[in-house]
Amino acid sequence: MSYFRPNIDELAAYVPGEQPAPGTRVIKLNTNENPYPPSPAALKVLHDLDADALRRYPDPMATAVCRAAGAVCGLEADWVLAGNGSDDLLTMIMRACADDNRSVAYPMPTYVLYRTLAQIQDARCIEVDFDDDYNLPVEALAAAQAAVTLVAMPNSPSGTVWPLEMLDDLAGRLTGMLVIDEAYADFAESNALSLVASRPNVIVLRTLSKGYSLAGLRLGFGLANPDLLAGLVKVKDSYNVDAVACRVAAAALADQDHKNANARKVIASRQRLVGALTELGFAVWPSQSNFLLARPPGGQAQALYQALKARGILVRYFKQARLDDKLRITVGTDDENDALTAAIRELLP
Amino acid sequence: MSYFRPNIDELAAYVPGEQPAPGTRVIKLNTNENPYPPSPAALKVLHDLDADALRRYPDPMATAVCRAAGAVCGLEADWVLAGNGSDDLLTMIMRACADDNRSVAYPMPTYVLYRTLAQIQDARCIEVDFDDDYNLPVEALAAAQAAVTLVAMPNSPSGTVWPLEMLDDLAGRLTGMLVIDEAYADFAESNALSLVASRPNVIVLRTLSKGYSLAGLRLGFGLANPDLLAGLVKVKDSYNVDAVACRVAAAALADQDHKNANARKVIASRQRLVGALTELGFAVWPSQSNFLLARPPGGQAQALYQALKARGILVRYFKQARLDDKLRITVGTDDENDALTAAIRELLP
Repeated sequence: MSYFRPNIDELAAYVPGEQPAPGTRVIKLNTNENPYPPSPAALKVLHDLDADALRRYPDPMATAVCRAAGAVCGLEADWVLAGNGSDDLLTMIMRACADDNRSVAYPMPTYVLYRTLAQIQDARCIEVDFDDDYNLPVEALAAAQAAVTLVAMPNSPSGTVWPLEMLDDLAGRLTGMLVIDEAYADFAESNALSLVASRPNVIVLRTLSKGYSLAGLRLGFGLANPDLLAGLVKVKDSYNVDAVACRVAAAALADQDHKNANARKVIASRQRLVGALTELGFAVWPSQSNFLLARPPGGQAQALYQALKARGILVRYFKQARLDDKLRITVGTDDENDALTAAIRELLP
Repeated sequence: MSYFRPNIDELAAYVPGEQPAPGTRVIKLNTNENPYPPSPAALKVLHDLDADALRRYPDPMATAVCRAAGAVCGLEADWVLAGNGSDDLLTMIMRACADDNRSVAYPMPTYVLYRTLAQIQDARCIEVDFDDDYNLPVEALAAAQAAVTLVAMPNSPSGTVWPLEMLDDLAGRLTGMLVIDEAYADFAESNALSLVASRPNVIVLRTLSKGYSLAGLRLGFGLANPDLLAGLVKVKDSYNVDAVACRVAAAALADQDHKNANARKVIASRQRLVGALTELGFAVWPSQSNFLLARPPGGQAQALYQALKARGILVRYFKQARLDDKLRITVGTDDENDALTAAIRELLP
């Protein structure tokens, strides 16, 4: 007998983007980190932490984060559930809602982890293809009637968003839960936050990893009505958010000016990078995120990825259908982006 | 249709011990925190952290922790898997190994979370009663042949340990995984670490929450052969250990002198507290941990718990069979323990 469940024995582990060892000199445009530092106020909280904060167990509900996130989103604290990154919220949702009798649906291509988490639950995955313009396949997702439907908005790796009415329509036609994963919302012109109050089956996920430059801290949160959140709390680790993350994240959320200023810089650099890549002959999808999906002229994406890596520039290459001729490029500083486009200019035939 | 799986709808959420709000003045002897501060070297690492450590994603495998923990335990780093507290390791084990066809066994009473985690997986729980002296029911656990068998050593809430030969015998008779949860091993005279090398189905869990005074940081680890750990890695969150915890924990693990000195103080205070409670007429179980299971004269444990709470002294009361006439009391500083016994002296009839 294997020690593991059959679906786990069959499972290929999710492989996160490369994280070079500390101190390695690379231009890192592969995992959508923010190129600017986090809020100085948040860093000060970190540096002021005393021994007692570490010695004692943290607040199981990370109330300080829920209050701060609620204030930002115009919701009461009990409409917020904090997690060890928004991946932790995705895990809670899958553990609470998906199993071999309860399926999971999402459009493809999207965040690869959705499939892995569904497979861990031994749930059937209903994968609906986007068209080439990344229009949201509302009819097919509604027809699937999955226990859990996931839509990333802006979607990764395409950077696309959709009109609120489209998501509202989808939510209204689903009897199961609709997860709107807004990890990149801080760089977008629109979001689906208003559905949280009007649709009892909607949960919106946010993270501090991108807009707040705190990927290392692991802090995400879910926004939904308290009844929905109560089901997720049942499966969450008792102390999923540590005492450091709780305090630092609350301070970062309170510093909206810092986050917004960085987002404006990233958005300006994004537009500049779109121009440079287009000039180099790339097809670039319209992005409302801090990354671009871009097809190099000729579609030799893997070779270009490897050649860039050899020069110390990391971008993301997905070896999967419909993506293997494209790269996902995180928007860095203008200097980083210029180094990237200069290298591409030399490498292209 | 409920949004949630039937077993989740039926589940009562695990309730962790009370965590008073920061700044509340209580003598906190209810969740087995260490009364002494963590390593100054670890705190220095925290205070020296720069913005880039927060901005970037952490090392997915928390390699620095695995190296430091391996060095302490005499194992290579690839025999160590780090988690967001040892609860995270328990979650990985359950998600990877337990389901409605694969049962979970453990002696009772023990850490309440085992049952909750099994129920989240919809796994059958095979609960084997300890006798009143907390002898390990090896025969019954071996007969159960569960996919996952869990033994906490020292056990909570009893504080008891068993001879290595007994655990070795159990491991050899099980075809499934044997989890030896050594959260409190830093206060014990013996442990089962040596079984990790000799028994392919054994995983030993450790935590920095107790011995290292780092409950707020959330850092636990599992020790097992790399093949076993590979199955668990498949279900772990991609970035389960944050960049702060990774660096601070590695420093704390490297400072064994600090941890050992604190453990010696706790053990001395434990012996003193056993004496004081025995003198007050309590029955006290022999403990190798940083807490005591103690039955007040007359067994009116709930009333005593509430009266102590009213005086600002928190101890743990479990309203469940075989425990509802006892208290679990964390060993504090001698001053805290003296305040506790003075209050009890006044409160007892």
